[in-house]
Amino acid sequence: MRARIVAVGSELLTPFHVDTNSLAITERLNDIGCQVVGKAVVGDDVVEIRRLVEAAIGAVEVLVVTGGLGPTEDDVTREAVAHALGLPLEIEEAIVDRIRRRFAMRGLAMPEINRRQAMVPRGAYVLENANGTAPGLCVEREGTLMVLLPGPPREMTPMLEAVIRDRLAPASGGMTLARRVVKVAGMTESDVDTVAQPVYGRWTSAGVPIETTILATLGQIELHLTARAADRAEADRALGTAASELQAVLGHAVISVDGRSLEAVVGDLLRAAFWRVAVAESCTGGLLTSRLTDVPGSSDYVDRAAVCYSNRAKTAWLGVPSTLIAEHGAVSEAVARAMAEGVRAEAGTEVGIGVTGIAGPGGGSAEKPVGTVAIAVVSDGETRVRTCRFVGAREQVKDQAVRAALNLLRRMLLGV
Amino acid sequence: MRARIVAVGSELLTPFHVDTNSLAITERLNDIGCQVVGKAVVGDDVVEIRRLVEAAIGAVEVLVVTGGLGPTEDDVTREAVAHALGLPLEIEEAIVDRIRRRFAMRGLAMPEINRRQAMVPRGAYVLENANGTAPGLCVEREGTLMVLLPGPPREMTPMLEAVIRDRLAPASGGMTLARRVVKVAGMTESDVDTVAQPVYGRWTSAGVPIETTILATLGQIELHLTARAADRAEADRALGTAASELQAVLGHAVISVDGRSLEAVVGDLLRAAFWRVAVAESCTGGLLTSRLTDVPGSSDYVDRAAVCYSNRAKTAWLGVPSTLIAEHGAVSEAVARAMAEGVRAEAGTEVGIGVTGIAGPGGGSAEKPVGTVAIAVVSDGETRVRTCRFVGAREQVKDQAVRAALNLLRRMLLGV
Repeated sequence: MRARIVAVGSELLTPFHVDTNSLAITERLNDIGCQVVGKAVVGDDVVEIRRLVEAAIGAVEVLVVTGGLGPTEDDVTREAVAHALGLPLEIEEAIVDRIRRRFAMRGLAMPEINRRQAMVPRGAYVLENANGTAPGLCVEREGTLMVLLPGPPREMTPMLEAVIRDRLAPASGGMTLARRVVKVAGMTESDVDTVAQPVYGRWTSAGVPIETTILATLGQIELHLTARAADRAEADRALGTAASELQAVLGHAVISVDGRSLEAVVGDLLRAAFWRVAVAESCTGGLLTSRLTDVPGSSDYVDRAAVCYSNRAKTAWLGVPSTLIAEHGAVSEAVARAMAEGVRAEAGTEVGIGVTGIAGPGGGSAEKPVGTVAIAVVSDGETRVRTCRFVGAREQVKDQAVRAALNLLRRMLLGV
Repeated sequence: MRARIVAVGSELLTPFHVDTNSLAITERLNDIGCQVVGKAVVGDDVVEIRRLVEAAIGAVEVLVVTGGLGPTEDDVTREAVAHALGLPLEIEEAIVDRIRRRFAMRGLAMPEINRRQAMVPRGAYVLENANGTAPGLCVEREGTLMVLLPGPPREMTPMLEAVIRDRLAPASGGMTLARRVVKVAGMTESDVDTVAQPVYGRWTSAGVPIETTILATLGQIELHLTARAADRAEADRALGTAASELQAVLGHAVISVDGRSLEAVVGDLLRAAFWRVAVAESCTGGLLTSRLTDVPGSSDYVDRAAVCYSNRAKTAWLGVPSTLIAEHGAVSEAVARAMAEGVRAEAGTEVGIGVTGIAGPGGGSAEKPVGTVAIAVVSDGETRVRTCRFVGAREQVKDQAVRAALNLLRRMLLGV
């Protein structure tokens, strides 16, 4: 089953609001194996809404429209759908009574304009709204079920549940969509695709077909896998096998196959190793430690961090010799290493990290341009050091440096 | 001028992602008086993208499509647009060269699949991408300018600016929508509205009408003012007067009237006072210092920070007496103050900040529930201390604590 979602509301076309109703709708539709193939946002505009309704008829099995069912003149979803279907709009007195009773419960008389909410395209099925005055509507045409729901989530959600339970689930044939996210670090999008495509390319025609999307952000690639199967267990089994196949070809570049973040994975590895970590940051300005401590319970393994923006601080707190800074420069592998060793010795932890670099926009040179970052991870008997050149603005350089440092620590913990 | 926006990406059809690019695009289009009349999201699906492109031709003056310009097989925006327009796709060797040079800058060879990114519908105008490999494209047909941009905001934004400057603004006919953002800290949304509504309520019927929207995020309120005028100077004058009126009623709760962030404002004040700052963080885990150092040039006034997750670190690095921790608890005004004093003395800076709290989800008690945060700012002869109770998950607590600490420092620097 395929669905489209339309959100109606002029405020959703300003720079300030996104449509979030569609996320909850998507989740519930996916649960019964119904895939959302398109979403749209339009203003309170009868022509535009009608155009979208007409385009959906016969093209998808489900069209969910939210919003525009209020009592005021700019609420035109009912009219637009009736026009699209060539059906007359008729007032249903039973609905008027229900709305009137709702007002009466709060000691109020129903304003005359609320009669508009009782208008129903002839033959439509009415969905009761337990939490508001606007009833929902269902109409079927050419194999497309159109479901009109009010915009406020508190009203919309229970009505959607009822439609799914009573109309869509019985028609869905019992299929389900399940998802899994595989995260990869330290490879470019093209490299990941070159290696992974021969694997995921086969899945679309498998017994349980799996679709794959690659999402690239700076310093991290995600593969989103979606399986369609008769039940959840079967879909999950297929996704588990698929994730293992990706791991087999991508190796230790795979951070997680269950959506866990890099910092959560590093945290689990630190905890499993009974290691505590101390951090010395310069260009990342505290972001590395903030990321590490975004994980609940991270106080178990994060001991302390020194953010040393001045060379004076590097020397006084971390014992980095000023001669070393003079000789190699503050941004150098030697200084990154001395920072990691210094903070580790100071804190008495099993592992120390040092990061020093040029986040920009100023401070670059021909030899060490903006984006140059030296990273060191030091544990008992092992030191890993690397120098990276990141592209992007200040915040992107910081972000990539944080990911690279976490990944270096992850690989040390894995011994790979 | 009317516009539609299409976001391409299968991940945008999952329950996990919303399209946010369209907000920035809407804002820029509004700036030149161009109204967004519809938005859509589709997967990486050549048929669906083509359908939306065909529907826009002749219906709106501008169609902006973001995403689907990557190098992999599931990036099909180029193909879909070429099909819709009946144009052949041709590889432009000049673009291949540019992409190859980009890889070479990072010491890499261009993977063969990146040649796909050099495919151009015959006759299209190519938009250079300063921050990535995917070039953008512009094609005009039947009065509709189609603008194809890559999905990552860092790449998309400057390319959009170029199209607006070079192609759309000259055709826009002169009306302009100008905006200004007034940021407020330390007040609730309803308090801001109670005070500000009598002021901004008058503006809608002014000579240059101004619309006002209040946007509340945890710990910060923004008033977005939008003026519509014949030219930019007139709109800016009206917005300047409006911002001053708000400042007159909101007083020092106003952080900035030009959109500057709290950390940028604090940075400017520190620089003006010739003060350097040192930070001692516990529950914020480095986020406060990271935020301070997000501002370019912040190394002028940020000396160092200590992130002390363990009590041991608080004692050893900051000289916080362990008896003080035992007596008052690690989360207390006494300890926050000792942390601020300790890091300030250690670093020899004019001002020190100490933050200690319970970010959650664990660690709360009846007396000090999750979200309790003590903050101290200490300078020569002045100490400000406060205890806050924030709501929300771990990351929201961290974020609110960072804002509250920056605001406390801001008010000390202003002497208010």
